[in-house]
Amino acid sequence: MIVLGLTATNGIDKELAKILGAKHVIVEHKLFPDGESYIRIPVSVEHEHVVIVQSTYKPQDKHLVELLLAIEAAKDLGAQTITVIVPYLAYARQDKRFRTGEAISVKTILRSIRCAGADTLITVEIHKEHVLTYFTGTAINVSAMDALAEYFKNIVKDPLVLAPDVGALPRAKRFAKILGGDYDYLEKVRDRITGEVRVKPKNISVKNRTVIIVDDIISTGKTMALAAKQALEHGAREVYAACAHALFVDNAYERLLTSGIKKVVATNTVPVPEKVVSVSVAPYIAETINELYG
Amino acid sequence: MIVLGLTATNGIDKELAKILGAKHVIVEHKLFPDGESYIRIPVSVEHEHVVIVQSTYKPQDKHLVELLLAIEAAKDLGAQTITVIVPYLAYARQDKRFRTGEAISVKTILRSIRCAGADTLITVEIHKEHVLTYFTGTAINVSAMDALAEYFKNIVKDPLVLAPDVGALPRAKRFAKILGGDYDYLEKVRDRITGEVRVKPKNISVKNRTVIIVDDIISTGKTMALAAKQALEHGAREVYAACAHALFVDNAYERLLTSGIKKVVATNTVPVPEKVVSVSVAPYIAETINELYG
Repeated sequence: MIVLGLTATNGIDKELAKILGAKHVIVEHKLFPDGESYIRIPVSVEHEHVVIVQSTYKPQDKHLVELLLAIEAAKDLGAQTITVIVPYLAYARQDKRFRTGEAISVKTILRSIRCAGADTLITVEIHKEHVLTYFTGTAINVSAMDALAEYFKNIVKDPLVLAPDVGALPRAKRFAKILGGDYDYLEKVRDRITGEVRVKPKNISVKNRTVIIVDDIISTGKTMALAAKQALEHGAREVYAACAHALFVDNAYERLLTSGIKKVVATNTVPVPEKVVSVSVAPYIAETINELYG
Repeated sequence: MIVLGLTATNGIDKELAKILGAKHVIVEHKLFPDGESYIRIPVSVEHEHVVIVQSTYKPQDKHLVELLLAIEAAKDLGAQTITVIVPYLAYARQDKRFRTGEAISVKTILRSIRCAGADTLITVEIHKEHVLTYFTGTAINVSAMDALAEYFKNIVKDPLVLAPDVGALPRAKRFAKILGGDYDYLEKVRDRITGEVRVKPKNISVKNRTVIIVDDIISTGKTMALAAKQALEHGAREVYAACAHALFVDNAYERLLTSGIKKVVATNTVPVPEKVVSVSVAPYIAETINELYG
């Protein structure tokens, strides 16, 4: 087995190869003067099980095209199987037509990866798991909740794990199960007189509790910051934020800090600011690969 | 027939629709805060012949992904046929493995476009026409030489048309045939004593001639500038540069001007600096579409 690291791996390729005992090779990449990417696989992949690692954080389209080029090259060069690891899959939230005429972007991305020659796709904590059916090969979603919950085991006791909405409740449940503790989801309540939107747990009081709000993605951090602020107002002892993919656009990190959040914990599917704790999903991806080829 | 213009059309979509007497619709596009593209087709395309126009100049990968999203959306929304016009096709020069292990990038690009749902692909003056076999639908290369030669009809008489190398000779031939005049190709000659590389026409003297050097792409402009400079040194009366795709990286335009070139003429497959003459390929693309669906 050969693990090929592309340009947006955030270290996962190297760690993965180490855990799997596989050869680790960095794919050659350069930019032509006009801005086109150049991709070269500098070792023979003939008859090999090839694992290609490329996350698709910003610039998403560039990282995606590099991935497509590498997959097709590996295929052409005789790889026996091609397993593509996309720790953060861009466009995953555009998973349906919210308005008539919209592109279902994640479908196009998944079909392109398949079409280029990927046999298997592994991604981490995808926004909605059902979209993986757009990939007509084997597609597996690895939960990031395990890695995140393991981190919290040593620093909190009997937490209340909160999902930002009812749809995300399974994430909080999985997280709470590993860590021990309660879980609930946040409900938006609009004050009938002031019109102010407040969020509070559906069933469980935050009073004197250690609260961990878990989500798949933190983008602007506005949802997370509002939830944290109001949990503290309602008497929570401390509030942590945990997510798989810390995209952090528009000063998200500063927004989270000023909301009173004690610590932000994310995974390494995307690079994060220095003060955010980053836990690795590589062991969980490795486990999945071992189940496939073990 | 509906002509859908995406974000990188350089006006070709509008002109094309006008010539074809087709409905012209601009595809909705925005960027999400994290940098992902959003694509929406704001009209019904059900049972329609849909023509999607998107060039893939810089940022190439962004323009390409937008195109893939739009194709798949049009397909999903029930378009009867999808004809994709990519006036400038990025990655066309990476058309083989120059070194072992390299990606044949243009293959991946063409296959992705096909896979997204394009029935027909029309491009302009592709670097090597044979690569279009990677597109398993109908793929047509429209020559830019006609549009360029027509422009020169009124401003030059009895020119010598030069290709920068023997491989590009058919371009010069086509150009010279429309315009009237001789054609030849430039040969590199390395001085055995000084090591200096000089370029000169294989068979015909430039002395007292109006010279037009034609190429598919001007990128850095170094080849073109060198050829022009030396043609003038060998007694050419004046030198023009003509190309299909004026990519102009690294001060290419300034380089061309200082080499003594009188005028640079390009097509509208990519946006060009103000002082470059831009001739439209839209009528020639329209002709091809009419032949397909007329």
